[in-house]
Amino acid sequence: MTPTPAPARFSLNQETIRQWSLPELVAGCTAAGVGAVGLWRDPVQKFGVREAAKLVADAGLRVSSLCRGGFFTAADPACRAAALADNRRAVEEAAELGADTLVLVSGGLAPGERDLAAARARIGEVLGELAPWACAHGVRLGIEPLHPMFASDRCVVSTLGQALDLAEQFPADQVGVVADSYHLWWDERLPADLRRAGEGGRIVSVQVADWVTPLPEGVLLGRGQLGDGSVDLRGFRELADAAGYQGPVEVEIFHPGLWARDGGEVLREVIERYREHVA
Amino acid sequence: MTPTPAPARFSLNQETIRQWSLPELVAGCTAAGVGAVGLWRDPVQKFGVREAAKLVADAGLRVSSLCRGGFFTAADPACRAAALADNRRAVEEAAELGADTLVLVSGGLAPGERDLAAARARIGEVLGELAPWACAHGVRLGIEPLHPMFASDRCVVSTLGQALDLAEQFPADQVGVVADSYHLWWDERLPADLRRAGEGGRIVSVQVADWVTPLPEGVLLGRGQLGDGSVDLRGFRELADAAGYQGPVEVEIFHPGLWARDGGEVLREVIERYREHVA
Repeated sequence: MTPTPAPARFSLNQETIRQWSLPELVAGCTAAGVGAVGLWRDPVQKFGVREAAKLVADAGLRVSSLCRGGFFTAADPACRAAALADNRRAVEEAAELGADTLVLVSGGLAPGERDLAAARARIGEVLGELAPWACAHGVRLGIEPLHPMFASDRCVVSTLGQALDLAEQFPADQVGVVADSYHLWWDERLPADLRRAGEGGRIVSVQVADWVTPLPEGVLLGRGQLGDGSVDLRGFRELADAAGYQGPVEVEIFHPGLWARDGGEVLREVIERYREHVA
Repeated sequence: MTPTPAPARFSLNQETIRQWSLPELVAGCTAAGVGAVGLWRDPVQKFGVREAAKLVADAGLRVSSLCRGGFFTAADPACRAAALADNRRAVEEAAELGADTLVLVSGGLAPGERDLAAARARIGEVLGELAPWACAHGVRLGIEPLHPMFASDRCVVSTLGQALDLAEQFPADQVGVVADSYHLWWDERLPADLRRAGEGGRIVSVQVADWVTPLPEGVLLGRGQLGDGSVDLRGFRELADAAGYQGPVEVEIFHPGLWARDGGEVLREVIERYREHVA
């Protein structure tokens, strides 16, 4: 029998089923009627960027995002210059893949640093150089606020409001924001910030995962399957829609429990949960 | 030789050196010239509330806080009534100990619940009954916002601004807020919210711990020794001072590494770090 296609706006982030190779991902998504995928630089580079772009395009898949650029906060100018050079390559890769957006995880505090405002200011400086480059390549940058529990070591941008403060320093067709339910669900300012983002045409990507506890050591791999946790995922998606967002909704779950299972089975479950809790 | 007394506003929260019995805590603090302690209900109850109050008072120690009441968010009215009854006992214990404030950890989402606003509203309802009781007992309640990583399972009050929104529903001599560097350091609104809290006479307790990563599984026991992490602790204390706070600064670190060591040695180290990074 022909499977029911996945919901129209559903996108699968590659890391959700990281046990799949890129050809397996493309075949699995095609078989399940998935129309878009979010890709990561490392597996794409290993496969070959041009080859990956061809594989995905030939299958008719849209690339909803490329994860990720960023890590702009080094205090040492030479390190920031290296980060900028690497981000320029990331832009070129995103352009070659035809990705809707290059997701930016801005970076944490420099070693020994205790000044969040200074670190946030450095992000703006690097963006000032990267944004025109991205624009020239037809790639839109998406600043992703990460949960405050990542503020010291991954991303000093902790709220959608802060991401907008940064993005609004640049034209809306160059720099927007990525709204991920896992990072933002706790913030009572989220509805107002999503409206602000929508009014400015700044929402470049929407990602979803659920919030489950207890968090694992290191907290990175604690993202929950849709419906398993505390997030009103449908409410989150509806807020983004009400703000004018009409693009893909990308499921991005990092969880060893999902990685240990058969990829096709995980995809079926994710789509089912998406219908139940998001669509 | 007579030891240099600990800095005047230094207070030791009992859980920082939980390996100490209550008499050891009192003896250790007295020997180190510590003027105030923060106590916890469980060890105080086990020792006997009256006996603990006498022990502490006889040593001339001030009780900067009693931890903790709260957990007001149960959806079931019978559970909320039980929480209220328990909090009334906590108020009585705080009164008997002469504690400056009863610290409230408000509680997380009810099982299966995904509505943070509804849970926050229930806190206000219970406070409406508890605050007059506390006032009649001469005890001030302190709403403690916890880091957003605890929003689902411990405390739906995640920012100082939210804590103030709740506290300001009641007279300032009944309900204030607890500002803990560990929970609040990441929030760019903290300076403005501390000013607001100070102007309203709402800062009832200031606690400090540092932010260190990687976080341990469950994240509760990841609070860092002063100076080991990313928090500008002196800047935090200065913000509270500038807002008009002049009370004790309580060191509250939950860390198995500190609990495994000799208590006296830990206290010496904590005082030294306090001088270096906070005072």
